[in-house]
Amino acid sequence: MLDFEIKNPTLILDEAICRKNIKRMSIKAKSLNLKIAPHFKTHQSLKVAEWCKDYGVEEISVSSFRMAFYFRDRGFKNIHIAFPFNPLLIEDLALMQGQPVSIQLVNEEVTKLVAQKVQSQVGFFIEIDAGYGRAGVPIENFELIDRILRAAAENKNLAFKGFYIHAGHTYHTDLEGIEKIHKETQEAFRILKAKYSSQYSNLACRSGDTPSASLMEDFEHIDELGPGNFVFYDLTQAAIGSCNKEDIAVALAAPVVDVKAEKNEILIHCGGVHLSKDVLEGNGVKNFGEVVLFEKDKWIIPPERAFLKSISQEHGLIHAPDSLMEKINTGDIIGILPIHSCMTADCMRSYRTLDNDLVDHLEGTMK
Amino acid sequence: MLDFEIKNPTLILDEAICRKNIKRMSIKAKSLNLKIAPHFKTHQSLKVAEWCKDYGVEEISVSSFRMAFYFRDRGFKNIHIAFPFNPLLIEDLALMQGQPVSIQLVNEEVTKLVAQKVQSQVGFFIEIDAGYGRAGVPIENFELIDRILRAAAENKNLAFKGFYIHAGHTYHTDLEGIEKIHKETQEAFRILKAKYSSQYSNLACRSGDTPSASLMEDFEHIDELGPGNFVFYDLTQAAIGSCNKEDIAVALAAPVVDVKAEKNEILIHCGGVHLSKDVLEGNGVKNFGEVVLFEKDKWIIPPERAFLKSISQEHGLIHAPDSLMEKINTGDIIGILPIHSCMTADCMRSYRTLDNDLVDHLEGTMK
Repeated sequence: MLDFEIKNPTLILDEAICRKNIKRMSIKAKSLNLKIAPHFKTHQSLKVAEWCKDYGVEEISVSSFRMAFYFRDRGFKNIHIAFPFNPLLIEDLALMQGQPVSIQLVNEEVTKLVAQKVQSQVGFFIEIDAGYGRAGVPIENFELIDRILRAAAENKNLAFKGFYIHAGHTYHTDLEGIEKIHKETQEAFRILKAKYSSQYSNLACRSGDTPSASLMEDFEHIDELGPGNFVFYDLTQAAIGSCNKEDIAVALAAPVVDVKAEKNEILIHCGGVHLSKDVLEGNGVKNFGEVVLFEKDKWIIPPERAFLKSISQEHGLIHAPDSLMEKINTGDIIGILPIHSCMTADCMRSYRTLDNDLVDHLEGTMK
Repeated sequence: MLDFEIKNPTLILDEAICRKNIKRMSIKAKSLNLKIAPHFKTHQSLKVAEWCKDYGVEEISVSSFRMAFYFRDRGFKNIHIAFPFNPLLIEDLALMQGQPVSIQLVNEEVTKLVAQKVQSQVGFFIEIDAGYGRAGVPIENFELIDRILRAAAENKNLAFKGFYIHAGHTYHTDLEGIEKIHKETQEAFRILKAKYSSQYSNLACRSGDTPSASLMEDFEHIDELGPGNFVFYDLTQAAIGSCNKEDIAVALAAPVVDVKAEKNEILIHCGGVHLSKDVLEGNGVKNFGEVVLFEKDKWIIPPERAFLKSISQEHGLIHAPDSLMEKINTGDIIGILPIHSCMTADCMRSYRTLDNDLVDHLEGTMK
C-alpha cells in the first residue's frame, strides 16, 4: 500500500516514470536535430510542463485557447494552438497579442477572416490530412493550400510557419502499420517541401502523433515533433508497441467495495467518470484498464494479468485470477492503468505523486 | 440559431423537456402508488433537483458521499447513497449524522464494520443482483443475505429498509428484453418478500433502472423506483425505446471548424472530453451523437439523420447528408444529442438553458 491515505478514486502520477518519458523523447529529438513542441492536452498541468522545461522544451502545443491562456498566464511562451482555428474565437486570438503564438488553418474562409482581423504577429501552420481523415487539407489539394496561402498573404502579421500532420491512425495499428503511415507522412512532407520551400525557405514540417515519434528512427523531411501522450503513455500505446507497460506514468487508485470470490471478480469505485469509457477490444473481450498493485512508493504489475471487464458511470468490475483474489479485500486500494491517459487525466482533473504531492490539472484549477 | 452567443462547446438544457420528463415519471409513480427516489447522478444539479421537488420528489438517490454532501448542504433530506458502501468512508458516514440517510450493503465484512462504528440512525438497503452481474448479492444467496442481516442487527442504529435491484442490463436490449428482465426483477422481489416480510414488515423493494421505469406498466412486488437517466434521456434510451428523441433534454452546442464538401463531413469542436466516449454501434457503424439544429429558443431534429461518426479528445467528425451540408458553414453552432447524457453532463460540469440561464452541476461548483 502507498504511504498515505486514499479513500476515493485518485489519479496517481509516478514522477520518475514521467520524467524518464520526457527525457527519452527529448534526447531522441535532440539527437535527430528535431525541434519538439509537446502537446500539453495530455497532462494539462503546470508541474508536468515544468518537468518538460527541465529537459529543454521551449515551445508547447495546446488544443484550446483555454489551455493557451492557462500556460501563458503561468509563464509559457511559444504556444501553438494545434486545433483547426475556431472563427468564433477571433477575439480570444487578439488576447494573445504580443505573445509568440501560432494557430492551425484548414480552409480559406477562416483564413480570410483571420487575415481581416489580426493586428499583431500570429504564426500559422496549415494542417494537412495525409490519410487519417480527421482534420486538415487533403494532401492532394494544392489548390486549397494555395488559396489559404494567398488569403493569409493579405495580412503581413500572419506568418506562415509550415505544415502540420497528425497521423492519428497510428494509434489503431501495429508496428508495420505505423511504419507505413510514417512513410506516408514523410512522403507528404517531401512533396510539400518540393513545392513550397523555394517560396517559404524556413517552412517547417511538424508531425504530431506519439506512436511514430516513439518508434520510428528515420525522420527525413520532418523538422519538428508535437506528440502529447508520450509523457504518460497508456495501455493503448503499450498495445501497439509505442511503450512498455512499465513506461505508463499514471494509475488510478480505486477503492475495493466488494470481492466476489465465486466469480473471480472485484468490484471497485472506478467508472467512466474516472477513467473515461475508452476501451481496448480483442477477440470479443473488452478491456477498460489493467490492475497494478501499490507498494510503499511505487506500483507493480502483477505477474498474472487482471483487467477491468466492464465499467459504468461509477462502477468498475475486475476479472481477476486466483493469485489476485487471494490478496485483495474490501477496503483495499487497487491501481488501474488507463486505456487512454489523456482522457483519464481530463476526467480526474488533478494528480497525486507517489509522495502525495498535489499536481495541478487545468480543469481542476480553472472553472 | 440560439438567441445568445456561444463560442465554445456548451451543454444546452431544455427546461421544458426536462420538466416534462420529471412530471411524466412522477405522475406514473403516483398513479401506481410507487414511491420515487430519483438518482441525481444524472444531472448532479441543484436547479434540476428543485424541478424534481416541484413534482413531489421527497427522497433522492446519489452515487457518492460527495454528491450526498452537495445536496444535503443545499437543503435536501432523505438521501440514499446507491453504491456499495465503501468502508474507507466510514467517517464520511458519521458526517451525515442526524440526517435521514441510507446506504447500500452487499457483503458481510462491510456490514460488520458499519455495525461496529455507526452511532446514529442509518438506513440500509441490501443490493441484490438478479442477473445484471455488476453489484449485489446474487438472488440465490439467501445465506449471505441472512449473514448481512444478522451483522446489521448487532447495532440498533442500523435500520433495514429493504432490497434494491438495478437491472442495468435493460440498457442493452429491446422492449422484449426489457420485459423479460423486468419480470426477473419482480420475481426476485416476490421471493425476497415471501422470505423476509414476516420478519421485516415494512421492507421496501426498490428498482433502479430507467428503461423498465419508463416502459413497464405492471410493478407488482415493487414499491419504489430510483431511476436517474429519465430526467434527460439520451440516444441510448431512444434506441431501446425508453423515450423518443424528442424527449432528450440536453444537447451539446459545438462550433463548426471545417466543412468538407467533397466528403460530406463537418468537423466540430466536440470530443470525448465533452460528450464522453460512449457509443452506439450497429452494422459496424459507430454513432457518437446525432445532430440537431438550434433555432431561436429550441432545437429541431433534422428530417435527414446526421451523426458523429468519430470523436477523439477534442475533435468530432459528423457524417452529413447533402441537405445538412447546404445549411452549415464554419463558425456555425451545431447541436449534438448525446449517447449517454449522465456522462456528458459529468464531462461538461454546467449547463445553459435555452434562455442562457446558468444551471449548476456539482463538478463545476465544488472542487
